[in-house]
Amino acid sequence: MEDSTVQIKELTPALVITPDALLKHWQAHRGLTRRVIEAFPENELFNYAVGGMRPFSALALEMINMAGPGVRGIATNEWEKFEGSDRTAPKTKEEILGLWDETTEQINTCWPRIPAHRFQEEVNAFGQWKGAGYWILFYFIDNEIHHRGQGYVYLRSLGIEPPPFWDRQ
Amino acid sequence: MEDSTVQIKELTPALVITPDALLKHWQAHRGLTRRVIEAFPENELFNYAVGGMRPFSALALEMINMAGPGVRGIATNEWEKFEGSDRTAPKTKEEILGLWDETTEQINTCWPRIPAHRFQEEVNAFGQWKGAGYWILFYFIDNEIHHRGQGYVYLRSLGIEPPPFWDRQ
Repeated sequence: MEDSTVQIKELTPALVITPDALLKHWQAHRGLTRRVIEAFPENELFNYAVGGMRPFSALALEMINMAGPGVRGIATNEWEKFEGSDRTAPKTKEEILGLWDETTEQINTCWPRIPAHRFQEEVNAFGQWKGAGYWILFYFIDNEIHHRGQGYVYLRSLGIEPPPFWDRQ
Repeated sequence: MEDSTVQIKELTPALVITPDALLKHWQAHRGLTRRVIEAFPENELFNYAVGGMRPFSALALEMINMAGPGVRGIATNEWEKFEGSDRTAPKTKEEILGLWDETTEQINTCWPRIPAHRFQEEVNAFGQWKGAGYWILFYFIDNEIHHRGQGYVYLRSLGIEPPPFWDRQ
């Protein structure tokens, strides 16, 4: 028994992050992104951007369309088409925040149903992006951080102080 | 033996990502960030920004000051003061890319020396930021993605097409 324990320790890679901690990490990021959405004035959320880019409402909607259906896909391995451009676009900040909060619940509901092997298994996300489950999840998170950082520039260029990056609640 | 194996499976959380895969993930992000640095014209790298923010050279230097000494700190648990503002600032793109590449090597050298328990252990990064080892590492990565996203806006507003976000080599 002692020998087999030693062997298992050597064969098992170090624990970097648990599924629970990754969920908490992402939801903390999502809390910050929600505050960035809130920081935009209603009009500028939909009609303002820098450098010919999309307004922050469109970036937030991309995050919403990726996160909820994405985690459901990771949990079930049944993938919908990515709705990035098909969905009827919300017209108000309140609608976007409502979708954001629905997504928060959807992620929390689906996450515990992700089978343990799925993180390392190759999936075909939305039927078009292949990668290990963890890689796809990291893509969702990283894509949110990337676009949220762009929202910071929009806000700064509007003279609005964004919520601090390190403050994740 | 079968019983103890079952027990270990139940007690061990699902493997999300190995240390090796996290290193590869980060270095792939760093490869993209390097191409973003390269995409800036020499002058604009040092003198251009949007919304009163720092130029991309300063953001890249922050990443450099955080990443190399940060991973050394995670590996050894000996922390230097954070040099964010003290270091003599490089004056050319070539110098920044040189520091970037030195950091790449430093990360690759220190990473395998991170003790297995350090990812979950609380550390006091740079003597001033407390968190689990994994959280601090994720902070380094997330901070890079955040600021790189801002660099994308700078480039777009200069009329320069940034390298695609999904292309990590």
